[in-house]
Amino acid sequence: MTSNTADLYNEYESLMQKAADINNAAAVLEWDQETYMPPKGAERRGRQLATLASQAHDILTGSRLEELLQALSLSNDLNDIQKANVALSLKDHSKNKKLPSSFVEALSRQSSECFNAWIEARQKNDYSVFAPSLAKMIALKQEQARLYGYTDHPYDALLDDYEPGATVAMLEPVFAKIRAQMPPLLEKIKSVQQVSNDCFHKTFPKQQQWDFSDFFLRKMGYDLEAGRQDYAEHPFTTSFSGNDVRITTRVDEHNYASLLWSTIHEGGHALYEQGLPDEQYGLPLGAAASLGIHESQSRLWENCVGRGANTWQYFFPALQSYFPDQLKDVSTADFFKAMNRVEPSLIRTEADEVTYHFHVMIRYEIEKGLMENSIDPKDLQKVWNSLYEKYLGITPPDDVKGILQDVHWSHGSFGYFPTYSLGSFYAAQFFAQAHKEIAGLNEQLCAGEFQPLLLWLREKIHKHGRRYTSEELCELVTGNKLDTSYFMRYVTAKYDTVYS
Amino acid sequence: MTSNTADLYNEYESLMQKAADINNAAAVLEWDQETYMPPKGAERRGRQLATLASQAHDILTGSRLEELLQALSLSNDLNDIQKANVALSLKDHSKNKKLPSSFVEALSRQSSECFNAWIEARQKNDYSVFAPSLAKMIALKQEQARLYGYTDHPYDALLDDYEPGATVAMLEPVFAKIRAQMPPLLEKIKSVQQVSNDCFHKTFPKQQQWDFSDFFLRKMGYDLEAGRQDYAEHPFTTSFSGNDVRITTRVDEHNYASLLWSTIHEGGHALYEQGLPDEQYGLPLGAAASLGIHESQSRLWENCVGRGANTWQYFFPALQSYFPDQLKDVSTADFFKAMNRVEPSLIRTEADEVTYHFHVMIRYEIEKGLMENSIDPKDLQKVWNSLYEKYLGITPPDDVKGILQDVHWSHGSFGYFPTYSLGSFYAAQFFAQAHKEIAGLNEQLCAGEFQPLLLWLREKIHKHGRRYTSEELCELVTGNKLDTSYFMRYVTAKYDTVYS
Repeated sequence: MTSNTADLYNEYESLMQKAADINNAAAVLEWDQETYMPPKGAERRGRQLATLASQAHDILTGSRLEELLQALSLSNDLNDIQKANVALSLKDHSKNKKLPSSFVEALSRQSSECFNAWIEARQKNDYSVFAPSLAKMIALKQEQARLYGYTDHPYDALLDDYEPGATVAMLEPVFAKIRAQMPPLLEKIKSVQQVSNDCFHKTFPKQQQWDFSDFFLRKMGYDLEAGRQDYAEHPFTTSFSGNDVRITTRVDEHNYASLLWSTIHEGGHALYEQGLPDEQYGLPLGAAASLGIHESQSRLWENCVGRGANTWQYFFPALQSYFPDQLKDVSTADFFKAMNRVEPSLIRTEADEVTYHFHVMIRYEIEKGLMENSIDPKDLQKVWNSLYEKYLGITPPDDVKGILQDVHWSHGSFGYFPTYSLGSFYAAQFFAQAHKEIAGLNEQLCAGEFQPLLLWLREKIHKHGRRYTSEELCELVTGNKLDTSYFMRYVTAKYDTVYS
Repeated sequence: MTSNTADLYNEYESLMQKAADINNAAAVLEWDQETYMPPKGAERRGRQLATLASQAHDILTGSRLEELLQALSLSNDLNDIQKANVALSLKDHSKNKKLPSSFVEALSRQSSECFNAWIEARQKNDYSVFAPSLAKMIALKQEQARLYGYTDHPYDALLDDYEPGATVAMLEPVFAKIRAQMPPLLEKIKSVQQVSNDCFHKTFPKQQQWDFSDFFLRKMGYDLEAGRQDYAEHPFTTSFSGNDVRITTRVDEHNYASLLWSTIHEGGHALYEQGLPDEQYGLPLGAAASLGIHESQSRLWENCVGRGANTWQYFFPALQSYFPDQLKDVSTADFFKAMNRVEPSLIRTEADEVTYHFHVMIRYEIEKGLMENSIDPKDLQKVWNSLYEKYLGITPPDDVKGILQDVHWSHGSFGYFPTYSLGSFYAAQFFAQAHKEIAGLNEQLCAGEFQPLLLWLREKIHKHGRRYTSEELCELVTGNKLDTSYFMRYVTAKYDTVYS
């Protein structure tokens, strides 16, 4: 690398790290907001976050960064990692530039208005209170798609914000297969005797729940010198650097499942963040590949590991020692069945591994329809309810349990939902590959030994950061493009055991 | 106000608030660092804080702010509050401008190096490890005084950062009086029977200590919807706005005094911050007058109220209900004596109200000597030990308990210590005035009714923010300049009762 190129790259890196510092500071403020902030602190916190966002935005859309990126993209002196960083930053920069400040501000204002309307509509349990704000938001998202530009479908432009490279053309066959293959599995399950999950609904004291989750997280390999768990209303993972990755959980003393799998899920996200290359701090290669890949890590730990029969060979006796009374008459097999009980329900966030994807598909179909104007926002409640009837055979009794349940649309997050399903599908494919490559993985899982699996994930997935798109990464790791048959085999095998 | 002046003032306010947002965000990161941050998060947190500091610094020293301040200072259209804000901002701006960026960076680097040297010296219990770094820091502080400029004494320039308007010429007579009048009081106390403080050294479970401190804070009027208390190694108060003011405390299960008065002390600081005018957010008049005035609020609550005989008429029976076994044979009078036991000791932070000021005077004399080159940093350990022998009649057995006990010098905080004593002196003078103006104050204190006192402090002190210097404020509130005879009367009366 010539000294001139080295100087330019250093300056680029330094600008990116400065923006990352500011964005990470904002993430600390948001974490605090959800965990410890006293209620009256909210108003000023809002403006502090807005100021930080605008400071980072100024750097990331500034002309100096653009000059550096232009110059560096013409250089032949960069190594592959540097080239990848510059190419990704250039892509981000030119994408950001497509949105004029006036549009970004309008979106931000509409997002506040729409969120407040959503809160009010939930209080009144009435979608019509939310509808006018949502319609404005949808119009803005259509405008955003137009500003970004797209070849085939406006929804493609929005998907790219969450899952670079994902398009309607890529998702259609994926969901088509699920739509074809999942209902027969669900019918089969419904036709046999339901399994009991009573063992989760005893009284489980908060502190012991917490202690066991802490034990499980440590066994997963979550470095608690570089992270921590706290309580929050909605579980989430946040990262201020690879050495400070925090998760939150929630607790219900009468439903142990609530804390346990939420903790494992967020723990999976956290392991990914802790495994990203620290020396790429602030640069694209120091960040996650996509939301779908992020979700693949959380779902792999939550479902493939955390709801797997092997895992509980080791962990169920341990769990019994935390709750000797509550679990004294429960067998490992019954516990395994209870955690995998399938039951169509109205709420996505509490859905089992089979019905979960119907929830996601419903959002996907609606979002696509809204973007192409084949669905009118005014009719959304009817559309929602008819899709729930169609896919899950149930109709929401009210709007709070139906169309108003998710916060995403009020924030303008259109294109986000598909990543929830993609994550599960990638997870199953990665997990199958891990079984091929890690000798004795089943025995390790049965012994509560997660280290070989974690090291494999670190080496195959985490260390690459954003270097590859999710599709490229999938092919690199498994030798194949995304293929939902891995997922179908995984769920079919699991539910054959549960509903034998 | 003409529309042009209004526009300029709005722009000034907006820039100041932006800088405040960034500085308050940094304060959240610092709070987190001291309370919940996992250890490995420290390194990146350091650079995140440095980035925020430089972003705020850019705004506060920027040419646009200067243009606005110049224009506004010539305007005749501002009201008194606006004039005061502009004048103070202009003072701050021209002071900041006197330090070139290269100097600020050198100071920041030396501060890191010096802090690390201090940590290492403490581990090795050896001042000589700290001395070379400290000598460099002292040279930088002398340079800073030269850059700021001063009329009489270089120390004046540094004092102004913490206590605007304070000078050696103002402090000399203050400390001279204390130096003359305090030793006889101490001798008198030493000549009679020592009082016992055994009642603090039983086993006090952590949770009950916490619960009582929470009860006390609420009675003080600390709004816990706009603040919270957490544990930290060193107790402190921090504020992210008047509606989010947090304190920390520490706990020792075998020394109840440690948590209780640290909580009341920080609670006093917090009440001041919660009482600053919220509509002046980000502007000088929304900030505290000085460290001395800040300390007057904490010391008034900690000592005048928290170690006062009246207060425990109400609170001691309450405290007994939290610790029935530990306090069953203790009378209110004995408890009052125990909390006011006087005993020369090596550690400032645990000193009683009499010997405390010798600790501060020792730092003051040393700092003044270092700035005027009459003390050589190499000799500091000897100077320190001889001053402890002179004022307190004891010699530190080692450096950790002596010259290495305070962190301040490693951070370059020279000129800070005098505010600890000034705070106590202002507190006694304010408390005497409150007794003149609040009818029935003694009876209110005996009944645990702090509301009238708090409202008086809010009205007389808190609401003014930085509008007046501490000297001006003292005269406004009490009709007199700072006069240590209030403090001497206060301690003499108290210790006459304790050591009757």
